[in-house]
Amino acid sequence: MRLTEALDLIELPDPLAMSQCRNRWDSIAKPLHSLGKLEDGIIQIAGIQKTHQVTIDKKALVIMCADNGVVTEGVTQVGGEVTAIVSENFLTGNTSACIMAEQSGTDVFPIDIGMNIDTKVPKKKIAYGTKNMLQEPAMTMEQAIQAIEVGINTVLELKEKGYSIIATGEMGIGNTTTSSAISAVLLDMPVEFVTGKGAGLSALGLEHKISVIKKSLEKHKPDKNDPLDVLSKVGGFDIAGLVGLYIGGAAARIPVVMDGFISSAAALMAIRLEPKIVNYILPSHVSNEYGGKILLDSIGVAPYLTCNMSLGEGTGAVALFPLLDMGLAVYEKMSTFEQINIDAYQPLEL
Amino acid sequence: MRLTEALDLIELPDPLAMSQCRNRWDSIAKPLHSLGKLEDGIIQIAGIQKTHQVTIDKKALVIMCADNGVVTEGVTQVGGEVTAIVSENFLTGNTSACIMAEQSGTDVFPIDIGMNIDTKVPKKKIAYGTKNMLQEPAMTMEQAIQAIEVGINTVLELKEKGYSIIATGEMGIGNTTTSSAISAVLLDMPVEFVTGKGAGLSALGLEHKISVIKKSLEKHKPDKNDPLDVLSKVGGFDIAGLVGLYIGGAAARIPVVMDGFISSAAALMAIRLEPKIVNYILPSHVSNEYGGKILLDSIGVAPYLTCNMSLGEGTGAVALFPLLDMGLAVYEKMSTFEQINIDAYQPLEL
Repeated sequence: MRLTEALDLIELPDPLAMSQCRNRWDSIAKPLHSLGKLEDGIIQIAGIQKTHQVTIDKKALVIMCADNGVVTEGVTQVGGEVTAIVSENFLTGNTSACIMAEQSGTDVFPIDIGMNIDTKVPKKKIAYGTKNMLQEPAMTMEQAIQAIEVGINTVLELKEKGYSIIATGEMGIGNTTTSSAISAVLLDMPVEFVTGKGAGLSALGLEHKISVIKKSLEKHKPDKNDPLDVLSKVGGFDIAGLVGLYIGGAAARIPVVMDGFISSAAALMAIRLEPKIVNYILPSHVSNEYGGKILLDSIGVAPYLTCNMSLGEGTGAVALFPLLDMGLAVYEKMSTFEQINIDAYQPLEL
Repeated sequence: MRLTEALDLIELPDPLAMSQCRNRWDSIAKPLHSLGKLEDGIIQIAGIQKTHQVTIDKKALVIMCADNGVVTEGVTQVGGEVTAIVSENFLTGNTSACIMAEQSGTDVFPIDIGMNIDTKVPKKKIAYGTKNMLQEPAMTMEQAIQAIEVGINTVLELKEKGYSIIATGEMGIGNTTTSSAISAVLLDMPVEFVTGKGAGLSALGLEHKISVIKKSLEKHKPDKNDPLDVLSKVGGFDIAGLVGLYIGGAAARIPVVMDGFISSAAALMAIRLEPKIVNYILPSHVSNEYGGKILLDSIGVAPYLTCNMSLGEGTGAVALFPLLDMGLAVYEKMSTFEQINIDAYQPLEL
């Protein structure tokens, strides 16, 4: 599916399914809305899936793997070769995200959307890494759209295979740098406000990272009102793929769980392309990366988890799944007030 | 075991086990401390269990069930008879907490520590409900100590049965009123700062609840420096039982997971009896009940979950278990940097 086609398909969630779902929650024998966001999450999914009979039994974690040309500028603590090493480990389950995914019954799908080298990771490669954004645009506009369409079509394939909810993950050394760059532009904020130490920079390293981002933005002057211009000039293939997952989720009515900083930057970009997409995104945690909270606030969502995580790979997103499963189990199994012979809590008049 | 005996047993967590646990985390192939509180939680449990080989496979949820005399003053939306109805449902698994416990592989142990009527719930009853604190002290000092000892001995029994971690739960109509009363005294704060709408009071109902608490405090003048005086005058058997769980956990070196508002008030009281207890308490969520955050801040802990929950029964506490299981799975299974042939992230000098 093409990007324009997918964007055209996006509608608002179904208000009827949401109201039926809310009614069921309110009939369950417990104080009204006392499961808080666990209730909200199930209601949101009902609206997305167009039915109060919510299904989240088949879960996928998609991990967009790509290299970022800007890494040659020394903006990271480890070298770009780590992208390929960790990405191949997704295939054997030997990463933090895979272990957490296994715990929550989630299947993991790493995708090589633009790594520097070829590995055993399934290839939907746009190019062998992006260009160094300090020197030239990270990618062409055509590549940006192509990478987004990889994400969109990944959702369609997973839907075809029966998956009912998708978590977003990424692996790409240097991708907090690109995420900070696009966040600064889209939020029209100083680079310092949305740039952190990534996987472990020193204070000096952070200063250098900020300077590289600033110079890149000055060079290319991406247009904050044109998300694709921003993405192509200072983004990455991993981020573009994530943008596609959000767009695909909204087009195919599949809930997509946002992970941390990079995933949030991609979500913001998707929402700028089509504001209705926000309804199809479930937040998970607030990243410990500096700028993580600003992104959530800008998107207008609050996290379920405040665990100071900053690992990436989709670890925060899959950590949400057991909570949603718990919420759904209560929603499906718990008796109503009538069934256990207690008068219902009455909604209060304000 | 007697209360004094248990308090005497409490030591600090084991620093060696904690440092061994931290070293293992730092050797795992991922950015340092990037699993945040999931790492912290496992390290805390290592210190409690005196070994870096952390075990949380056998999980219990203890639900202290009791009635509160002050309910006759109309401080709640539903009647006291609901305590017994819901408590009996714990035996058949037909409550929100039971369903969530089942999802996380947790066994549920409701205890009748002072319900108005006899039910099938296992009885360790101190009395048939507390007295109405607006008229007289809720219980005698002997009853307060006896109820705490029920909690202590429950932990010892569960340890004997092989349980390695305990979640705290309660069921007792009127127990946000008693929790607010003891919180106001222990924190030396105006009653309004720590009193919310419980399971669904109107604004007028809240005003009445605050007034009843204020009058009770004026009448009995509990001594904020004497937690047992506070507990006996304006507490409840459910809260006393929870205080005992925290003391028993610290004495028997079993981690105890704090739930929401009532459970936090009990934790604060336990910590006032013996400050070292704070090291044995794992927070879970921040209750949506007004005053929930103040209690966490006063105890000095930050929540893992920010889900606006306020159901009680231990629902928030058991919601933490899948996260801890995920953290422990990474801790146990994930390869080290050496194993996957990547240079380790270096701890930074400050």
